[in-house]
Amino acid sequence: MNSNDKKIWHGRLQQATARSVEHFVASISFDQRLAQYDIAGSRAHARMLQEVDLLTEEEFAAIDRSLGQIAEEIAAGSFIFDEALEDIHMNVESALIERTGEAGKKLHTARSRNDQVALDLRLWARDEADAIAALVRNVQTALVEQAAKPENVGAYLPAYTHLQPAQPVALGHVLLGYVEQLARDVERLGDCRRRINILPLGAGAVAGTTLPINRRRVAELLGFDDVARNSIDATSDRDFAIELAFCLSMIAQHLSRWAEDWILWSTNEFRYFRVSDAYSTGSSMMPQKRNPDVLELIRGKTARVYGQLVTLLVLVKGQPHAYNRDMQEDKPAIFDAADQVRGCLELAAEIVAQGRFNVDEMRQRCKGGYLDATALAEYLVDRGEPFRSAHGMAGRIVAACDERGLELSEAPIELLREFGGERIGEDVFDRLGPENVVKSYRSLGAGGSGLVADEVKRWRQALGM
Amino acid sequence: MNSNDKKIWHGRLQQATARSVEHFVASISFDQRLAQYDIAGSRAHARMLQEVDLLTEEEFAAIDRSLGQIAEEIAAGSFIFDEALEDIHMNVESALIERTGEAGKKLHTARSRNDQVALDLRLWARDEADAIAALVRNVQTALVEQAAKPENVGAYLPAYTHLQPAQPVALGHVLLGYVEQLARDVERLGDCRRRINILPLGAGAVAGTTLPINRRRVAELLGFDDVARNSIDATSDRDFAIELAFCLSMIAQHLSRWAEDWILWSTNEFRYFRVSDAYSTGSSMMPQKRNPDVLELIRGKTARVYGQLVTLLVLVKGQPHAYNRDMQEDKPAIFDAADQVRGCLELAAEIVAQGRFNVDEMRQRCKGGYLDATALAEYLVDRGEPFRSAHGMAGRIVAACDERGLELSEAPIELLREFGGERIGEDVFDRLGPENVVKSYRSLGAGGSGLVADEVKRWRQALGM
Amino acid sequence: MNSNDKKIWHGRLQQATARSVEHFVASISFDQRLAQYDIAGSRAHARMLQEVDLLTEEEFAAIDRSLGQIAEEIAAGSFIFDEALEDIHMNVESALIERTGEAGKKLHTARSRNDQVALDLRLWARDEADAIAALVRNVQTALVEQAAKPENVGAYLPAYTHLQPAQPVALGHVLLGYVEQLARDVERLGDCRRRINILPLGAGAVAGTTLPINRRRVAELLGFDDVARNSIDATSDRDFAIELAFCLSMIAQHLSRWAEDWILWSTNEFRYFRVSDAYSTGSSMMPQKRNPDVLELIRGKTARVYGQLVTLLVLVKGQPHAYNRDMQEDKPAIFDAADQVRGCLELAAEIVAQGRFNVDEMRQRCKGGYLDATALAEYLVDRGEPFRSAHGMAGRIVAACDERGLELSEAPIELLREFGGERIGEDVFDRLGPENVVKSYRSLGAGGSGLVADEVKRWRQALGM
Amino acid sequence: MNSNDKKIWHGRLQQATARSVEHFVASISFDQRLAQYDIAGSRAHARMLQEVDLLTEEEFAAIDRSLGQIAEEIAAGSFIFDEALEDIHMNVESALIERTGEAGKKLHTARSRNDQVALDLRLWARDEADAIAALVRNVQTALVEQAAKPENVGAYLPAYTHLQPAQPVALGHVLLGYVEQLARDVERLGDCRRRINILPLGAGAVAGTTLPINRRRVAELLGFDDVARNSIDATSDRDFAIELAFCLSMIAQHLSRWAEDWILWSTNEFRYFRVSDAYSTGSSMMPQKRNPDVLELIRGKTARVYGQLVTLLVLVKGQPHAYNRDMQEDKPAIFDAADQVRGCLELAAEIVAQGRFNVDEMRQRCKGGYLDATALAEYLVDRGEPFRSAHGMAGRIVAACDERGLELSEAPIELLREFGGERIGEDVFDRLGPENVVKSYRSLGAGGSGLVADEVKRWRQALGM
Repeated sequence: MNSNDKKIWHGRLQQATARSVEHFVASISFDQRLAQYDIAGSRAHARMLQEVDLLTEEEFAAIDRSLGQIAEEIAAGSFIFDEALEDIHMNVESALIERTGEAGKKLHTARSRNDQVALDLRLWARDEADAIAALVRNVQTALVEQAAKPENVGAYLPAYTHLQPAQPVALGHVLLGYVEQLARDVERLGDCRRRINILPLGAGAVAGTTLPINRRRVAELLGFDDVARNSIDATSDRDFAIELAFCLSMIAQHLSRWAEDWILWSTNEFRYFRVSDAYSTGSSMMPQKRNPDVLELIRGKTARVYGQLVTLLVLVKGQPHAYNRDMQEDKPAIFDAADQVRGCLELAAEIVAQGRFNVDEMRQRCKGGYLDATALAEYLVDRGEPFRSAHGMAGRIVAACDERGLELSEAPIELLREFGGERIGEDVFDRLGPENVVKSYRSLGAGGSGLVADEVKRWRQALGM
Repeated sequence: MNSNDKKIWHGRLQQATARSVEHFVASISFDQRLAQYDIAGSRAHARMLQEVDLLTEEEFAAIDRSLGQIAEEIAAGSFIFDEALEDIHMNVESALIERTGEAGKKLHTARSRNDQVALDLRLWARDEADAIAALVRNVQTALVEQAAKPENVGAYLPAYTHLQPAQPVALGHVLLGYVEQLARDVERLGDCRRRINILPLGAGAVAGTTLPINRRRVAELLGFDDVARNSIDATSDRDFAIELAFCLSMIAQHLSRWAEDWILWSTNEFRYFRVSDAYSTGSSMMPQKRNPDVLELIRGKTARVYGQLVTLLVLVKGQPHAYNRDMQEDKPAIFDAADQVRGCLELAAEIVAQGRFNVDEMRQRCKGGYLDATALAEYLVDRGEPFRSAHGMAGRIVAACDERGLELSEAPIELLREFGGERIGEDVFDRLGPENVVKSYRSLGAGGSGLVADEVKRWRQALGM
Repeated sequence: MNSNDKKIWHGRLQQATARSVEHFVASISFDQRLAQYDIAGSRAHARMLQEVDLLTEEEFAAIDRSLGQIAEEIAAGSFIFDEALEDIHMNVESALIERTGEAGKKLHTARSRNDQVALDLRLWARDEADAIAALVRNVQTALVEQAAKPENVGAYLPAYTHLQPAQPVALGHVLLGYVEQLARDVERLGDCRRRINILPLGAGAVAGTTLPINRRRVAELLGFDDVARNSIDATSDRDFAIELAFCLSMIAQHLSRWAEDWILWSTNEFRYFRVSDAYSTGSSMMPQKRNPDVLELIRGKTARVYGQLVTLLVLVKGQPHAYNRDMQEDKPAIFDAADQVRGCLELAAEIVAQGRFNVDEMRQRCKGGYLDATALAEYLVDRGEPFRSAHGMAGRIVAACDERGLELSEAPIELLREFGGERIGEDVFDRLGPENVVKSYRSLGAGGSGLVADEVKRWRQALGM
Repeated sequence: MNSNDKKIWHGRLQQATARSVEHFVASISFDQRLAQYDIAGSRAHARMLQEVDLLTEEEFAAIDRSLGQIAEEIAAGSFIFDEALEDIHMNVESALIERTGEAGKKLHTARSRNDQVALDLRLWARDEADAIAALVRNVQTALVEQAAKPENVGAYLPAYTHLQPAQPVALGHVLLGYVEQLARDVERLGDCRRRINILPLGAGAVAGTTLPINRRRVAELLGFDDVARNSIDATSDRDFAIELAFCLSMIAQHLSRWAEDWILWSTNEFRYFRVSDAYSTGSSMMPQKRNPDVLELIRGKTARVYGQLVTLLVLVKGQPHAYNRDMQEDKPAIFDAADQVRGCLELAAEIVAQGRFNVDEMRQRCKGGYLDATALAEYLVDRGEPFRSAHGMAGRIVAACDERGLELSEAPIELLREFGGERIGEDVFDRLGPENVVKSYRSLGAGGSGLVADEVKRWRQALGM
């Protein structure tokens, strides 16, 4: 049997497929990953076919049993895939027919590879969205745990804007900032999942079928929320995959920002954070090195995930609204994006959990940068000074102190009054110095220690910790 | 007053800003578009400040009145923007202070441009998401109307896969396929809107404030669903804008596929569709030309919208988790993406509404391509033939008819039986020929005329038509 | 020996690398592809080390011999790669040390993996640029051969703009249009190659070395045109890989446009081109299908190549100017881009070579669309009519003929004169009708049959055919 | 006259263009930027037409004079553009016809807007490539000047890899690293220019012309190196614009890496660099702030330039090989990319020129990080120790010194010998300590002070300083 005879679609074509083509168009090297979904889909399809009398009970039993065996063999790695059979669908169906004869030849009734691959990919994407959401929550949990560690509670550090020290905030506040980003990712995955969870099967190649199938039953068997309402759209829609890639890109983006922060924190210059040795690497040339490679790779992989999103968006642009073979390229892109993000999330959870913060250094760095200047201006506002004037006064006080080498909290009250006026009382010193500032924040969502403790509590509950 | 004195942030810096810098960093040329949102936000902020006694009633009244006037002047085009004041926030605040003196100087209490711009952009994005959803629905409505037109009901054409004729489907089925795509866009915009509709104001520059502001009240005044829970995240989060750009990219993608179809349909070779003259253009050189330029531009603009999404994703990648000036580049990108998509949606609705289909040509083209071959195979399945064998038989019948220059429906039953066996009865001819096929579709979501009529009804209801 | 002892860089780190990290950071799964380049680089490096007396002759001989053996084992597939050794460099060096002891330990003298991987990737990129240029020339050759085939010489078809028929041109003209695009690709690859062909080795980790190495000698041994002049830049520069990805993107883009044309040409509606059966596929559901899958996949893979270019550009953006681990992600991206483009070029050459044109259909389609309207206008210009008026006249003549169901060439001269004036003589008919038009083109680069014949000659010479 | 009558291409279309379409398809808002190029092209075209007798001398004189006037009016801002005339070509031609009557109507002889816009864009791109190359050289010059400043000569700092201090290098070495990157940009622009500088005019709409024009003469008049050899390709080729966008992306990428370095250097933690006040901004809320906004914006604008490149690549993907209206979107993309990069380069040159380095801090930071560990290992190699063992010894010496709180240069020789063996002599101290290391580099391209002085000399010559 030449490889052509294996092609059940070959019917009308008279020349054998060129060898080079066979390899070029084959997707089995990557879509075998869909095997279990393909089989689960076929089993549900078969059961429905039996229920509408397109299969006998015996035929269904034979198909179901054989598909179960094939699934086990694939899981065990003993199933042999054949490139000449092109894709996962034909590899499975061919094995089925070998084992069940006529019964197996009935499985493809009222379906096409066009709706079948859409089904498989949706089943995969649904699981993947769930799995990734769980991994995101692991990272969130690790961050909240760090924020709640006794040695970190009470710690504070400069919040930066433009990478310049801005105002002191509780360490937990920074950690919870990442948790908030990731919370949107979980939510977004949930929204995406709703659009994934629509059954395409039954759309056939493009037009549906004249056979009396029951699509709602298949949806029920496979746990879908609804059935796709238009067969053209059902077979040509890859929006769910693109949207998943977008969700993954946003996760990667968030991880890249976290990684950037912690790479900086790991520098000799910042010294806020020490990646555990288990998560560092050295240099083949420089004996003294200790590099935060994993964080850098996570940052770098964001570029890769973006690239896959671009691939998917470009792939479908301007395609006639129906299945076209271009679409085969959706799988390598979305598979890779998911794999990369999974890997990053797993490592991120470990790095967060095992990292140690240098809270002394953080505290130390809150001195000397006039990070309490805003608090001083707000003190003046509290005493009735318009903010714009208060901002100017605080600026001049900072300049004066800078000249004299003084912290604001060390300045004699006369100096403060010289530029800030008589509104300034002795109680100003309860508001100056980083520790006082961190205690003073009052607005919801601010970086104060008490506010952060409340948020930690909220998050522990939300994450079921 | 040199331009530097205008910069209320200038305080500690001792040298005047370079002229080249002033121009380079100024955002007023594009963020003046946020003016009304900036002012609405300031009015809500001022009211809250008054309620928590950071403004007197008189101060609030003066501020509120002046902001109202400024809003009117901007709307009327009589307000003069000053590049030396950098951005919309400072232009407005500066005008306010000019008009109200000390009162105006209090407006910026407990806020920073970092949370202010986040607020403005969210208010804009919320309106934009709603406006675009409405435009998408207009296109859907125009498509459903076409599907329901008497001259189109009953029309059918080949559905294509791989741009090769596949099976006959009702014209309405193709039109509703686009409607389904766009339905996901509306849904997605709704999900995005929930993440847009979170109040960032009160997050200050990065850390919140020590002043006793009431963020929930501001949220209520401005119609936000919730307040952002972390000040660092609140000021550095642009996810909502990126997600909006993604929603826009998906809309553009869908329009590009529709445009591609209709560009093809407009060719001399297909002749399915005639763009109204009002939506066509000619050639400066070739006297006979009639070009579907608008459709091509819509397809082309997809590339532009994608580019803006890429800009936004790349912009935030690896940024330290806080406000950095890079973010200023978010606005030109998201503004342009929204403008382009709006323009495309408006034109798309008009083109759909005014286009005419050549239903005779469509019908004609259903002949000669053996588009009923699948229906024939399904007929055999109905009679008990396993699908795989039926597919093979139908293939051989097609080949035989092709040789003899016959349609399937013209073939003598003997010929059909020669390759398809005795299962074939005279009733096979009720299933052959495009018209019969289109009537025979039975699966939910298939391209049959009756099914499509049901779907048209469903959509008319859903769209409130 | 635990996997940590294998890490020669481990020195100062005290904790074992986490298993998860080992897998996450390992690049051996993809960089083993660089093995032969790594070894070639090491052999040149070793020879130079011997020449400057950092190796003895015996040491060099041992190293050289063992590296040769390792190269052979890798080529034969018998070499076992170890993930715990991370990358190709360490896998090779470790095997070398096992075989040569102390001598092998000297190989890494005055180099780091940072300059080593830059070297390997440049050697690979240089070969790849050459190989791909050769494949591009194969496609050009196949196109020129088609243009020169007796059955195609003399054929003409409508040139389209906006996918609307514009003017008749020789078939060869369309084919040579693709050749021109590809010619720029070859040129661009040549320019890129100059920037690839610069030796980075000797830059060490980032700063160079205090040892007396001879970089020019290594450059000479490995065929580089020059040595990189700055060690920081040499180790952190991936411009050559990004530029190669850009060249590949442009090739893919050109192939996508060609594929789009020929997909259209293969439709039932155009019928200009028949992909050989060996390059078509059928449908699992529809017995009559014949799909140009390979062309569609080529078009689709353009999206993938673009994605890899985006990955590379994003990867380096904002990286501190030195080696960072993010860069490891350069290899999967550029390797995949190159593989995809190679695959596409190979198939493209075959499809071009084996495709057949339906020249009768092409000729036929030149009728009825007034494709000679421009020629008519130009005839009027030749007779002294200003082009703008001539354009208007020709437009009116077209309209009049359209009404009467006449081709321009069939119109009575009175009708032509009614709208085109007395300038029109009987000789106008020598310029009307597609065949006459194709003969009449006179400008350099125009679509006339004679001009095309000259160009075919020029290309045959240029391509050494 | 309704706006439709203005459309000289309108001829055969019978319905007025819809108002919404007129606005949607009009390009005059952005392509008026091409006005001078459009006119220069027309003047050359007209001269050639006269030379081949398609214009009389009088007609040519009238056209040439009027075009000159129009050019002046446009330059002076007194020319009024009309959206109903769509684009720059029609605005200019229409004004010309108004002023010259019949003569003007002859200008569009043997050309189409398809080749005309390609010409204009190439003329623009050629100038732009030159102008940008000059701006890049300005930045290079500023960098070399900084490297040559007396206060910077002799300065050294840690070179970083993975943002961890690696080895000490001369300050000039870091600066010249940027110069090398930019050198590739200049070279790449030059290569791109060759592909820009090809004349498309004479290709007409798609097929060339039957009129006896002389394209080589136009090329000569406009300074083109060659004429495009295929009219289809000439009108549909935007490769030159995409390639220019790629060159711009690479420049932006290089600037982003430089900006990232200097943003880090400007932090309180690094303190290596002080942006001049004139290039910094403050905060509207925090009185003490001093932000490197310009550097951040430059980094951010890289994302924008990338976005435009993506737009251009996506735009042409899969387009039929001919002019399609999608292409109109090329201009906003390439114009914006060029504008952004120009702005960044101008600011970059100023920031480099006016920045000051904190060389004391740099020197200081070279202590305490064992940056001489590699030099110590290389000392051992010099004495015959295999590098791999030397690397291990140096690692252990570093650990021992770290424990004792000693620099390598402070360690007693006994300690060095304990882990490094008897090869270590007193002369080791000539190689330890950052200053000694910087003096010791010997390899071409290394970070040593002497080597850098040579490179500065080389660059001064190359840049004509």
